[in-house]
Amino acid sequence: MSSSANPESAKRPADLMKKVVALCKSRGLVFQSSEIYGGLKSAYDYGPLGADLKRNLMGEWWRDMVTSRENVVGLDASIIMHPDVWRASGHAAGFSDPLVDCLVSKERFRADKAPTVEPGAELPITCPDKGVAKDWAELIEKRFGVTLDRDANVLHGMRCIDKRTVGFFTKGSTAATKSFPFRGYVSPTFGSCFLSDERQFNLMFRTALGAVDPMQDVAQVMAELTSAVDLIVAVRSRFAAEATNAEHVIARALKDGDRAKVIRAVIETITGPTMAYLRPETAQAMFVQFKNVLDATGIKPPFGIAQMGKSFRNEVTVEHFIFRSCEFEQMEMEFFCEPGSQKEWMTYWKEQRMAWWQRYANYPEAFRFRQHAKDEMAFYADDCYDVEYLYPWGWGELEGIASRTDYDLGQHEKHSGAKLRYTDQEKPDPVTGKKPWQYKPYVIEPAAGATRAVLAFLLDAYHEEERRTADGTVEIRTVLKLHPRLAPIKCAVLPLVKKDGMPEQARAIIQAMLKAGIAAKYDEKHAIGKRYARHDEIGTPFCVTVDGQTLQDGTVTLRDRDTTEQVRIPAADAVEQVRLRLMG
Amino acid sequence: MSSSANPESAKRPADLMKKVVALCKSRGLVFQSSEIYGGLKSAYDYGPLGADLKRNLMGEWWRDMVTSRENVVGLDASIIMHPDVWRASGHAAGFSDPLVDCLVSKERFRADKAPTVEPGAELPITCPDKGVAKDWAELIEKRFGVTLDRDANVLHGMRCIDKRTVGFFTKGSTAATKSFPFRGYVSPTFGSCFLSDERQFNLMFRTALGAVDPMQDVAQVMAELTSAVDLIVAVRSRFAAEATNAEHVIARALKDGDRAKVIRAVIETITGPTMAYLRPETAQAMFVQFKNVLDATGIKPPFGIAQMGKSFRNEVTVEHFIFRSCEFEQMEMEFFCEPGSQKEWMTYWKEQRMAWWQRYANYPEAFRFRQHAKDEMAFYADDCYDVEYLYPWGWGELEGIASRTDYDLGQHEKHSGAKLRYTDQEKPDPVTGKKPWQYKPYVIEPAAGATRAVLAFLLDAYHEEERRTADGTVEIRTVLKLHPRLAPIKCAVLPLVKKDGMPEQARAIIQAMLKAGIAAKYDEKHAIGKRYARHDEIGTPFCVTVDGQTLQDGTVTLRDRDTTEQVRIPAADAVEQVRLRLMG
Repeated sequence: MSSSANPESAKRPADLMKKVVALCKSRGLVFQSSEIYGGLKSAYDYGPLGADLKRNLMGEWWRDMVTSRENVVGLDASIIMHPDVWRASGHAAGFSDPLVDCLVSKERFRADKAPTVEPGAELPITCPDKGVAKDWAELIEKRFGVTLDRDANVLHGMRCIDKRTVGFFTKGSTAATKSFPFRGYVSPTFGSCFLSDERQFNLMFRTALGAVDPMQDVAQVMAELTSAVDLIVAVRSRFAAEATNAEHVIARALKDGDRAKVIRAVIETITGPTMAYLRPETAQAMFVQFKNVLDATGIKPPFGIAQMGKSFRNEVTVEHFIFRSCEFEQMEMEFFCEPGSQKEWMTYWKEQRMAWWQRYANYPEAFRFRQHAKDEMAFYADDCYDVEYLYPWGWGELEGIASRTDYDLGQHEKHSGAKLRYTDQEKPDPVTGKKPWQYKPYVIEPAAGATRAVLAFLLDAYHEEERRTADGTVEIRTVLKLHPRLAPIKCAVLPLVKKDGMPEQARAIIQAMLKAGIAAKYDEKHAIGKRYARHDEIGTPFCVTVDGQTLQDGTVTLRDRDTTEQVRIPAADAVEQVRLRLMG
Repeated sequence: MSSSANPESAKRPADLMKKVVALCKSRGLVFQSSEIYGGLKSAYDYGPLGADLKRNLMGEWWRDMVTSRENVVGLDASIIMHPDVWRASGHAAGFSDPLVDCLVSKERFRADKAPTVEPGAELPITCPDKGVAKDWAELIEKRFGVTLDRDANVLHGMRCIDKRTVGFFTKGSTAATKSFPFRGYVSPTFGSCFLSDERQFNLMFRTALGAVDPMQDVAQVMAELTSAVDLIVAVRSRFAAEATNAEHVIARALKDGDRAKVIRAVIETITGPTMAYLRPETAQAMFVQFKNVLDATGIKPPFGIAQMGKSFRNEVTVEHFIFRSCEFEQMEMEFFCEPGSQKEWMTYWKEQRMAWWQRYANYPEAFRFRQHAKDEMAFYADDCYDVEYLYPWGWGELEGIASRTDYDLGQHEKHSGAKLRYTDQEKPDPVTGKKPWQYKPYVIEPAAGATRAVLAFLLDAYHEEERRTADGTVEIRTVLKLHPRLAPIKCAVLPLVKKDGMPEQARAIIQAMLKAGIAAKYDEKHAIGKRYARHDEIGTPFCVTVDGQTLQDGTVTLRDRDTTEQVRIPAADAVEQVRLRLMG
């Protein structure tokens, strides 16, 4: 669709991201969630056009991955799953970010993304203003016993001694007056080295399931508490079923002698039995329902189970509009194949998935693969590729295609006790040489971000074209060159004027379009040029216009969004013409 | 599609519910969530066929309510919204069930659904077995000081004196030995009158938003606690921003002198700022985004905003398979109209919605309206109707159509401070007589349950037909008479045998079907009769069979699921023939 070979050199507007975000709001593609209440930074609402764009995009994935494949079936599992699923998958223990608080500014940030510093480097703290600098200097003096130099809003005196030590140096001194332990990084906004311990923050959202109010139980236990040791007794008497576990956890916390830790352990024990998570990915359901799907469908490896839908991650850093948000949508597939065949299936799915992404793009070269390095992959993974897109801020992930071996099925076997295997009656077991061969299939997982895909295709589609008008001035045409199958509205049907029976004819065409399953919209507001411009801006690929000639000879014009060219066709052919263009 | 006029007299199988549930599991329509982990009683997973059935059903609603209407637009909002949304809507304070615990059996149940008893009635406690009866009798003696008579597994001696009093009567006595306060109902399973106080249990699922761990803060405050009064100080010093509110809440709890209440108030105060809810309905987003939609689309009343998607309610009682579960899907629309026009729009939407339900049904008479009584409606509601379906257990709700006045927009105006009004430049204000007329639109809300709709249409579709086979025996044909637009697979394409080029021809037809957007599936396993039976059972409306004659004259058979009749048509016409039948 495009003449450009290189996305970086393509004539794409500066401030592309800003322009796309503005268009999303002004034309009703994407709104901030709960905006009238000050907004929720972690979530977005898809407006009239965005809802259909996302639906169409996910529908295309489903059509390609499920409907049109003999060996892939769909699944639509619940968002709240049994908590043991996340113990088996490793998410309950390991799906976390290391968080640190700056003890001065209270800024909370991810330790693994914080700026690191080299030995010898000065560590100035850049405060928001002079007043704050004074407050923070006092706080540091009181809490850490060092008096930093104040230079307007900057505090001086701290320096990195080595990777594990920072020191306070009075002006001009080469020896540290006082030194502190250090972890090699400072807070990202202010550069502070006065930091809390790192603690692991699990990214899964928690909730409580069942007609219980665990906080009521926590309050009750706490109210009965007279000494820390009494806690074991209190918990044991109220929660008999979990007492053994409670005792163990609390005893361990007691040994540490930390009262807060003891209470924390009690809270965990009380809330544990009703605790549930919002799924952080859609993938695990395909492993958990593996046996049910096998039994119900009689499908045989190699086969896939695909699912799309919402996932939730309590992200510390949300960024780049809908690129990273706490609530998002995924399109994932687990492809189960014979052990040993995973390499060829990886090749197959890489090719299939890249072709899918590029099919809808104006700039196919803005999509690429990036192979994961060995140390990037989970210990059980065989191989892994990201499909990356060239966002305005650089290459970033759109989809991961991972060769996961039989790790997931194995984990769920271990935790559930169910046998998650396939028995191939026709083939001999490679080890014993005897039929049948019972094995845990190996898995290739193409896992794509649907919300990110919406952003990528909006960025890909946004164009500004200069054109000379009749009076010689140059104006900008904003056109969203969405693939016709993604476009929220497929065809606008426009009466040239609101009289002479044109609205009636236009509405008759709309009805025929809708009957044929084409999302067509009637539009009669404003002059025709303005209506074309409006539909260019929201990506409507075709406009059918009913004009004076229609009333005479039964023809209409069919306008193409990208070329702006119009052809006259019989009104009776409009549906079929648009239908053929959409099938293409 | 059916010859029967009365669903109650229609030849529908006994145990219809049991059979539909069994079919759902065996054919992969609906599975229990996390079944290999013992299952989650409150959630279900939609298997390969169920996922498409639900998608098709919700797609039909969207097509009818959004795509094909000029005056309705779509929305797809986030599940986690700003918590103030639920304060404004009333859900945070009022969306709750009254829960009671049986102090003997520990059964927890809804007070408003418990069996009531009349004065004079005996109140026997029916225990699970004799051993339990002995334990419970001892517990009652110890805790309430009365010795009930034991007769096998039943305990006797309690009787209802009046609506507010129960008494213990020793054998043969007419005067109560001892009496207790009573609330007029007993526990549903065992009939116990020894009950806890009622407490309101909010149905919204809670979670915590942001990179914080409020339980850590709770533990810290608790650890620092030496006396209840210290709590104010502790909370105030740690949570400056919320201190005023905390102080107020805690002070009130302190006045009650209940230590557990004080601690509960502290927990609420600490967890409050990060607390968020999973939406219990999709509807509120349409009010919250009302202004954004108006601004982005320029739409004018009367107009609607429609949304479908997941909602979550922490139901005490989950029942009837997917009828009532904690995680479910809704299809809701808010139709904004001029104050005063709500009656005519209620009439319009009632008619539209009933037509929609009946369009897909074999037994349209199994759908009816039930008008809400005045005392059933919220105080602000004008009028309300349920669309009910005749489930195997009786009439039950499928959709509510409510005339909600301008209450919701008014509430969100009040809580957010935003102006949620429409300014009609053309019309004079009815009060002042002057243009423009600025008003809060009145709302008609057709709110349907998508998950329930899946169940209703499965029940409607399930048929067992007797037929005589060639050898004279009678066999049962199970056929799922789903409306073709709802059916997960539209057309099965079957090679009569797996050779002679038949699979290749069948696959070529599949490809043409898929290109035309028809969900077609290839199937070559087992004898042709068995394949027809399999597709009847999962509701595939059409089967195209490639046989020996196809190779000679290029024709195939097209079989109709409901009549089992076959017609020969040119293979080249198969796509168009099926397409026309699906459009109908």
